[in-house]
Amino acid sequence: MAAAAPPPAPTPTPAPPVEHQPNPTPLTTFVRIRLATPSDVPFIHKLIHQMAVFEKLTHLFTATQESLSSTLFNSPPFTSFTVFILEVSPNPFPIATTHPTQTLFSPIVTLVNLDLPIVDDDSEGFKIVGADGSEVYVGGFVLFFPNYSTFLGKPGFYVEDLFVRECYRRRGFGKMLLSAVAKQAVKMGYGRVEWVVLDWNVNAIKFYEEMGAKVLQEWRLCRVTGDALQAYGD
Amino acid sequence: MAAAAPPPAPTPTPAPPVEHQPNPTPLTTFVRIRLATPSDVPFIHKLIHQMAVFEKLTHLFTATQESLSSTLFNSPPFTSFTVFILEVSPNPFPIATTHPTQTLFSPIVTLVNLDLPIVDDDSEGFKIVGADGSEVYVGGFVLFFPNYSTFLGKPGFYVEDLFVRECYRRRGFGKMLLSAVAKQAVKMGYGRVEWVVLDWNVNAIKFYEEMGAKVLQEWRLCRVTGDALQAYGD
Repeated sequence: MAAAAPPPAPTPTPAPPVEHQPNPTPLTTFVRIRLATPSDVPFIHKLIHQMAVFEKLTHLFTATQESLSSTLFNSPPFTSFTVFILEVSPNPFPIATTHPTQTLFSPIVTLVNLDLPIVDDDSEGFKIVGADGSEVYVGGFVLFFPNYSTFLGKPGFYVEDLFVRECYRRRGFGKMLLSAVAKQAVKMGYGRVEWVVLDWNVNAIKFYEEMGAKVLQEWRLCRVTGDALQAYGD
Repeated sequence: MAAAAPPPAPTPTPAPPVEHQPNPTPLTTFVRIRLATPSDVPFIHKLIHQMAVFEKLTHLFTATQESLSSTLFNSPPFTSFTVFILEVSPNPFPIATTHPTQTLFSPIVTLVNLDLPIVDDDSEGFKIVGADGSEVYVGGFVLFFPNYSTFLGKPGFYVEDLFVRECYRRRGFGKMLLSAVAKQAVKMGYGRVEWVVLDWNVNAIKFYEEMGAKVLQEWRLCRVTGDALQAYGD
């Protein structure tokens, strides 16, 4: 990822004559979480496909850009299906944005220090060029929507998908995305944030538990789909 | 449940002199599934509490009539949180209804033959008296809302709660409620109906599998709530 790599580190100065070596100057990159818009659908579609590959579930992947476009943006954000996009940029993000949804959610911008530069082999496929010529790169997304707890008598958020592209992992970006959903839930007075995890995905379970989640061992997901569902329409 | 019991069986005639006894005259009752309205909140609240008792989870039950009223009816049915009410009546339901939501969902009425009369010890607490003096009894409910499958690229329904009062169980009423949700999903072109079940509830699992559901054994529910959630608001 040539263009999205952090800016080159300054030329190192000779080590000062002190007992302990100072830490090397960290590489920095800017990360922004913002609401998705319909123009993000090509990225969302590719990210979902990458997730299906990762989960070895491509045989279940039938979404198209058209099906996503026609179903994802029919209601105001947070009242129904909602997508946050995570963008990475070597330079500060331009402040101005005119998309109307931005009044509903102020983008979260973070400056991240990296130990190693990010090498993105698919940067062209995830590049967004701004009106001012600036280039930013889509690194991941989270799709969520309101659910409801009858015991609490209030809504929550259900996270359907959380995905960070392979080259951006292990840098806290997934945590940023999930935290943004949790923060929004608190802001709206909601009672829970929930999602599901595969029981063999021990790294994900560890990550979620560190984020304050409890893994409920007793519940199983039930699903009616395909022909079994269609039969109810007769 | 004196008033909601099926009409008394006709006086039996002497057994005819044939080899096989005819089947006894069946008891009949009318069952209706309709959209809930705000006036159903007292019933919904009591039904949720009964469910919490059944699941031994009353320590998690904090919903009030006020919290339900303020959160359940803010969006058109099927676009957000939606409740179907199951009513039972010994007499045919009046056809006329003026509530505006009824144009969005035509109530489903079924005539059910029962082997034994229903004895409802709490009929007074679940009685609805119509403008014409008719009396019907709330027997159960289902609460559901849209969810989203990124793999399908389309919405589905998630069933948060399905509950039938104890005295109305084992008569197919739960199946009617869940079928009504599945039928609505098909009508709307949705791809899935999903819910969760406790892994020790073998009767429920058997019931769901007979209805065409697959129980997904690998997925676990994750939840951030309470103080762990509030921490994200800081």
